[in-house]
Amino acid sequence: MEYASQSKESLEALHAELAERYEAFRSEQLSLDLTRGKPAKEQLDLSNGLDGILGGFYLLQDGTDVRNYGGILGIPEARSLGGDVLGLPASEVLVGGNSSLTLMYMYLDFMNNHAAENWADEAEASGGKCKFLCPVPGYDRHFTICERFDIEMINIPMTETGPDMDKVETLVAEDPLIKGIWCVPKYSNPTGHTYSAETVARLAALPLSAGKHFRVMWDNAYTVHHLSDDQDELENVMELARKAGTADSIIQLASTSKITFAGAGISFLGASEANIKAFEQFLSAQVIGFDKVNQLRHVRFFSDGDALANHMKQHAAIIGPKFELVLSKLDAALGDAGIAEWTRPRGGYFISLDTMPGLASEVVKLASDAGVKLTPAGATFPYGVDPEDRNIRIAPTFPSMDQLDKAMDVFVTCIGLASVRNLLESL
Amino acid sequence: MEYASQSKESLEALHAELAERYEAFRSEQLSLDLTRGKPAKEQLDLSNGLDGILGGFYLLQDGTDVRNYGGILGIPEARSLGGDVLGLPASEVLVGGNSSLTLMYMYLDFMNNHAAENWADEAEASGGKCKFLCPVPGYDRHFTICERFDIEMINIPMTETGPDMDKVETLVAEDPLIKGIWCVPKYSNPTGHTYSAETVARLAALPLSAGKHFRVMWDNAYTVHHLSDDQDELENVMELARKAGTADSIIQLASTSKITFAGAGISFLGASEANIKAFEQFLSAQVIGFDKVNQLRHVRFFSDGDALANHMKQHAAIIGPKFELVLSKLDAALGDAGIAEWTRPRGGYFISLDTMPGLASEVVKLASDAGVKLTPAGATFPYGVDPEDRNIRIAPTFPSMDQLDKAMDVFVTCIGLASVRNLLESL
Repeated sequence: MEYASQSKESLEALHAELAERYEAFRSEQLSLDLTRGKPAKEQLDLSNGLDGILGGFYLLQDGTDVRNYGGILGIPEARSLGGDVLGLPASEVLVGGNSSLTLMYMYLDFMNNHAAENWADEAEASGGKCKFLCPVPGYDRHFTICERFDIEMINIPMTETGPDMDKVETLVAEDPLIKGIWCVPKYSNPTGHTYSAETVARLAALPLSAGKHFRVMWDNAYTVHHLSDDQDELENVMELARKAGTADSIIQLASTSKITFAGAGISFLGASEANIKAFEQFLSAQVIGFDKVNQLRHVRFFSDGDALANHMKQHAAIIGPKFELVLSKLDAALGDAGIAEWTRPRGGYFISLDTMPGLASEVVKLASDAGVKLTPAGATFPYGVDPEDRNIRIAPTFPSMDQLDKAMDVFVTCIGLASVRNLLESL
Repeated sequence: MEYASQSKESLEALHAELAERYEAFRSEQLSLDLTRGKPAKEQLDLSNGLDGILGGFYLLQDGTDVRNYGGILGIPEARSLGGDVLGLPASEVLVGGNSSLTLMYMYLDFMNNHAAENWADEAEASGGKCKFLCPVPGYDRHFTICERFDIEMINIPMTETGPDMDKVETLVAEDPLIKGIWCVPKYSNPTGHTYSAETVARLAALPLSAGKHFRVMWDNAYTVHHLSDDQDELENVMELARKAGTADSIIQLASTSKITFAGAGISFLGASEANIKAFEQFLSAQVIGFDKVNQLRHVRFFSDGDALANHMKQHAAIIGPKFELVLSKLDAALGDAGIAEWTRPRGGYFISLDTMPGLASEVVKLASDAGVKLTPAGATFPYGVDPEDRNIRIAPTFPSMDQLDKAMDVFVTCIGLASVRNLLESL
């Protein structure tokens, strides 16, 4: 039954029950953590075969010795692997080091500060500030990059079909200093939603009105990260952009961080050949070549056509049950309470939960005091400010099932407690 | 006999002989290369044991799983290895990815553009330009970083004991916009000279007059790269800086690029704990953590106390004879000709040769036309301009002994030919 429609007496009884339960958890002196969007040990073990896979063979078909210097674009075989992941020809892929975040940072540094016609100069000339559209809730590290380069961020509401495109198109038409939009188009961080075909098409067309220096930052971090055989489909943004004549405005990113080793994978930047060439030229002052030995390890590890998909099924077998556990706990405790909403992703690394307005910080604090660490309220918004103080990101992958079970019991109790208190106060 | 003291007839005979020899080489249609400062295949083979060394064990003593995310400073064991290489405690070392060049670029980006009190702002406020002192001949990639950040470069002559310190001190005392100096203090690129104790002490004291934002960029790339047991010694700059009160102005760099795999090693930045902390904070927007799996590989590979020194002896056994071959060819052909001077390094990767003034470009072109690629004249100077057009960098490590033998025969012939022509023209 919905909390909001209950009598004061009923709410007070509920409060007493929840408070007692909460105090019982507190007395357990727990130390649990739901913040970490990183793979569990069992997932990492899936890729231990990377070590030793080279067997003394370091030469490529083109004669390159991967151990030596050089080759900013990456080895052809790894560019091809990245192309498979991103839906691009190998010629439109640059293979980076162990982090696509670093590639994103470098690319925005290039566009903002170092390109011949760069955003910062344009902003200065017009006396304004460059801006980026940020679908919210979103990924905090995207926002940190914008902050670093003093790019103003504008919140765009995320819907089940992607960013609110009406708002996006209106803003872009009004302000030429809007230079880009962050997108996690598939199994989005943190909502888990996948952009609809219409959203992708509208994003591919966006640069037509936004101008040639506009960039759609397409962080396809979770493209092969399904939780089961029931999978989302995402349109190929680059194919649509080619048709629309906007290919030079699409920058795609991906990595193997959540495929092989989180801290020791390889990363991919996908873009038009013209953009790849300009970016390579920019990188040449700071990079002699990314780690080609590790690129070769990955290519060997995924050499069979189905190897990657089969590997991801093994991940799903480990983390799928963790997502199910989180959802079953939320359903059981809050399913008919009307005090929270949450997403039911078919892939990715997160579940996004919205409390009643104004309660996220309180829930996070209650949980923390009871020994359960949650991602700070606001972390999924630019500048760390959730205007409605509602969103909490849940990361189910890293804890064990036992830890997750306990942490969720505490979490739902905290949501209940904060909500009942709030309802009682407003009576 | 010195060419310059010979008669016109004698020079003409010499010219005919050299021209004939040159044409004979040209007809061979050679394709040789003396430009590549990179390890030979046999050297890379020394480190093939890195692959497979982990044997399924990824946990550190402190419980860290190196496969997962995090840890910008690097794993403790690798910081300790870097400390051994640089002569620092582990707490003063950050372990980077596969390139110390990338660390240098990031550090200068930080100091120039992003530090709270940064060089670019200071230059703008004073209406001038930041400047860097560049001992010449030097390393072109250092110069490229300065160009990227619009830092003006000032040539400082290299001597056998290091940069001309009288000139350095005079300039620094005159101009507060001089913000740093590039140093390759041991087996310098390209001369192979090692800074004397006096030079190191004067450099350690330099920031006292240059100001607290001045940085000595101490690129100790060749610190363990001896060619034989006859080795140079370098003072510990950080110890001297601590005594002088300038520790915050010393930034040390090194990597395993020329120890293990050129393109897949690990890198080190050594600095005061305060500087390490500030740099870590800066990096946090672009780096989640460098590749800790590769760090662990390197730590395991060099786990014995003497392992690194013994490993470098194996390198010396491969490249020592190549340096000897180059020197013996130069001695035999040009030893008493008085038309060129060259260095006799006891370590590092290069031999530096100076032709008669104005002839380096001509020699490089002659060699190129005969199928021997040399580093472009001027490459060892800021902006690619060697004011005297004299310096040529020879890189003996990569070619085979046979290739090196032939390439040197061509090279000395080109030097002779260009020099005799020049002498004849000036008669």
